[in-house]
Amino acid sequence: MDDRIHTIAHANTIPVASHQRVIDGTDRLLLPGFVNGHTHSSQVWQRGLIPQLPLELWLANVFDSTPRQLEQFYWGAVSTAVDTLLSGGTCVMDHAYVIPNQELETVDALVRGYRAVGIRAVIAPLIQDLPFAAGFPKGCLLPQSASSRSATELIALMEAIAAEFHDPENGIYIGVGPTGFHRCSDDLLAGCGELSDRRDLCYHTHLLETRAQQRLAQERYGISAVQHLHNLGGLTPRTSLAHGIWISEEDIALLASVGSTLIHNPVSNLRLGSGLAPILKAVRAGLNVAIGCDGAASNDAQNMLEAIKLSTILHNVTDSDYEHWLTPEQAVQMAAAGGAKAVNLSDRTGTLTPGMDADLMLYNLDHPTMLPRTNPLQLLVLGRPTDVVEAAWVRGRQLIDQGQLLTVDTAALHHNLRHPTLARQASQAQHHSVEAHYRAMMLPSASNLQ
Amino acid sequence: MDDRIHTIAHANTIPVASHQRVIDGTDRLLLPGFVNGHTHSSQVWQRGLIPQLPLELWLANVFDSTPRQLEQFYWGAVSTAVDTLLSGGTCVMDHAYVIPNQELETVDALVRGYRAVGIRAVIAPLIQDLPFAAGFPKGCLLPQSASSRSATELIALMEAIAAEFHDPENGIYIGVGPTGFHRCSDDLLAGCGELSDRRDLCYHTHLLETRAQQRLAQERYGISAVQHLHNLGGLTPRTSLAHGIWISEEDIALLASVGSTLIHNPVSNLRLGSGLAPILKAVRAGLNVAIGCDGAASNDAQNMLEAIKLSTILHNVTDSDYEHWLTPEQAVQMAAAGGAKAVNLSDRTGTLTPGMDADLMLYNLDHPTMLPRTNPLQLLVLGRPTDVVEAAWVRGRQLIDQGQLLTVDTAALHHNLRHPTLARQASQAQHHSVEAHYRAMMLPSASNLQ
Repeated sequence: MDDRIHTIAHANTIPVASHQRVIDGTDRLLLPGFVNGHTHSSQVWQRGLIPQLPLELWLANVFDSTPRQLEQFYWGAVSTAVDTLLSGGTCVMDHAYVIPNQELETVDALVRGYRAVGIRAVIAPLIQDLPFAAGFPKGCLLPQSASSRSATELIALMEAIAAEFHDPENGIYIGVGPTGFHRCSDDLLAGCGELSDRRDLCYHTHLLETRAQQRLAQERYGISAVQHLHNLGGLTPRTSLAHGIWISEEDIALLASVGSTLIHNPVSNLRLGSGLAPILKAVRAGLNVAIGCDGAASNDAQNMLEAIKLSTILHNVTDSDYEHWLTPEQAVQMAAAGGAKAVNLSDRTGTLTPGMDADLMLYNLDHPTMLPRTNPLQLLVLGRPTDVVEAAWVRGRQLIDQGQLLTVDTAALHHNLRHPTLARQASQAQHHSVEAHYRAMMLPSASNLQ
Repeated sequence: MDDRIHTIAHANTIPVASHQRVIDGTDRLLLPGFVNGHTHSSQVWQRGLIPQLPLELWLANVFDSTPRQLEQFYWGAVSTAVDTLLSGGTCVMDHAYVIPNQELETVDALVRGYRAVGIRAVIAPLIQDLPFAAGFPKGCLLPQSASSRSATELIALMEAIAAEFHDPENGIYIGVGPTGFHRCSDDLLAGCGELSDRRDLCYHTHLLETRAQQRLAQERYGISAVQHLHNLGGLTPRTSLAHGIWISEEDIALLASVGSTLIHNPVSNLRLGSGLAPILKAVRAGLNVAIGCDGAASNDAQNMLEAIKLSTILHNVTDSDYEHWLTPEQAVQMAAAGGAKAVNLSDRTGTLTPGMDADLMLYNLDHPTMLPRTNPLQLLVLGRPTDVVEAAWVRGRQLIDQGQLLTVDTAALHHNLRHPTLARQASQAQHHSVEAHYRAMMLPSASNLQ
């Protein structure tokens, strides 16, 4: 197969057949491609827009400024793919917002964007059948707006999307993406699990990102949200769970035992003040961990190397025994092999192994941000490398050469990002109407002091 | 004065005299230059070299691989200045390692480096009169190696360095830089305070970076290390204290009342697992806070925008009341005006005010990392901007134009960083001989389990 890795070897030690491409690694570092394990591509248009707020209040602002034009979704996918590629990623898990009543058209726009760039992509449309207010713990007095579609209708919609767009042979995958237990009925969660099983699709969802969600789970289920998802058939080796900041040690043990994946999004978790995820505990318990950027409204960049750096250093403050700290090698393994497992592609990508698909990144060690030549892998992870991807291949196809993208026209991308009818104007940071409810619920003592 | 800001104004609203330079801000963002409030320039040679370890063990590895050639110190200063400038900084506080018995020659090399680039620099040579082992709490059985110089000799040395190199008229300043209370006698600390007062020099020192230092202070003084420094005359408005992770609320109140500055180094604090500094509490108490990169052996980049981003988002997880969270505007103010106060230059730099020295940064808002056009300041801080400094001025002199440095030859810098006799080869991560002592002292239960 021309699109697979044949051999990893020292120079001049193996004969090469004429049809085989040989990559010279002199002054270069070759790594498997990373997986951007959790993002929301259309948020590219909201980069720099939303102030720092807790998730529940931030989300109200995000809804208010969500793109509504298909062209924005196409360019959002292109931008997310390009930024992921130029920071070492060869695959994106897009937990995608889709325009209501234009769901298939939205997914079509995303697929066109990812195919134009040539990156692998899993598109898991965000679906929910409970209203926004349901995501708050009991006691919230927000009006319960009617939801537009039932669980049955949403599963039928996902069947149709998968039938039309799931295309593993061409590196495009459809995933089942319930928003999170907090805005999904048990029927919807169970239906998603059943569809994931039947069609061998990834199951991707938000999990216990905030303290409010943890309280909600206790109130609604009386048991751990993780156990509840498990009871509904949602936890398999195809399942990846974004954030998991508030999972317990018992949750970690359960997730490890079923072979699911935790997606760590350190930049977003800090920007929203969600908390420090128990990553060192998860790794020690054998739970697979991958790394994501999260959407550009909560991490105003899509740079995998930044997310990997922060994943590597952030958790040192949570464990005084430095023998538990992640090494740069472990973090790279999480982003590559851990990410491949998260998107159910462990047999195809994530390691430099003969027979695997050629999803490869070649880094330029002569770049100023990679000097001096000390420990290249450590400097790649702990430095602030920029423009260091010299070449990249996805599924054997070269997408970057000499630092330049070979597929889409990045000038056209940047022109569109500047386009005044597409780019939203900056809005004043506004405290949304849900704020009073949030403060009363989550910050009772602070509210009383006011 | 040609090197000062004359007016900040909207386009075409003011007449301009022929000798005045007008900067056009269309599609540009003009900010005051930041101060890289704490770094160790020679550690550029150790970028990517030292594994993640707690400060006390990391330091043993740093000592083992410290540069010893004057040329390395020159290029270390150049590299630190260039990276600071290209990420928005116009001033560096270099808490500088100096070669024993070549102290004046080392400072001369650093001054030459900073003058070649044209950046403002405060050089505070690291001095101490207690051995390495003194930095551990009681119970450490390490041999007490003899120190090479007495407190009196060190103060005399600093007098000589200040007499030769302190040159405010040309933007080069000498600071008094005792390493930290943990490796300095009371005589040395008091002598530094007296010299700082007498010569109006900055006083810059490490403070309570680790839990081990906090324990040491309690054992040695029986009172807060901050109070002890104050008793020795070390706390004035010219004093800046790096890290301060383990300061108490009482310490914060004392520091605020005397007008000293806390230098926050978030990347280094995570990489060494030192802890989360109480930055939100400090800001709320009115303590001046500035931002530093720390040396490249504990933050393998010298990028002010990275340190500012992390300063802005990291502390959200320490306070559930989001009204206390730092805004991007506050973080920029900390890095600029807060940094100017830290280096005793509030009357000259740190704000866009007519009459202040022209220490200016012009950012290109058309750069792809600054798109789309939402909230430019928020995207500068919360995104991952790269190559966005279009022009920079220090003390009225333009150092960057169209993204290119106008002073030193960056090709020569990179050539030297590649130079095999200057760049150290990567060494295997080694656990130093102090490790057993550290584990027994700081991780007694973990040691017992082994």
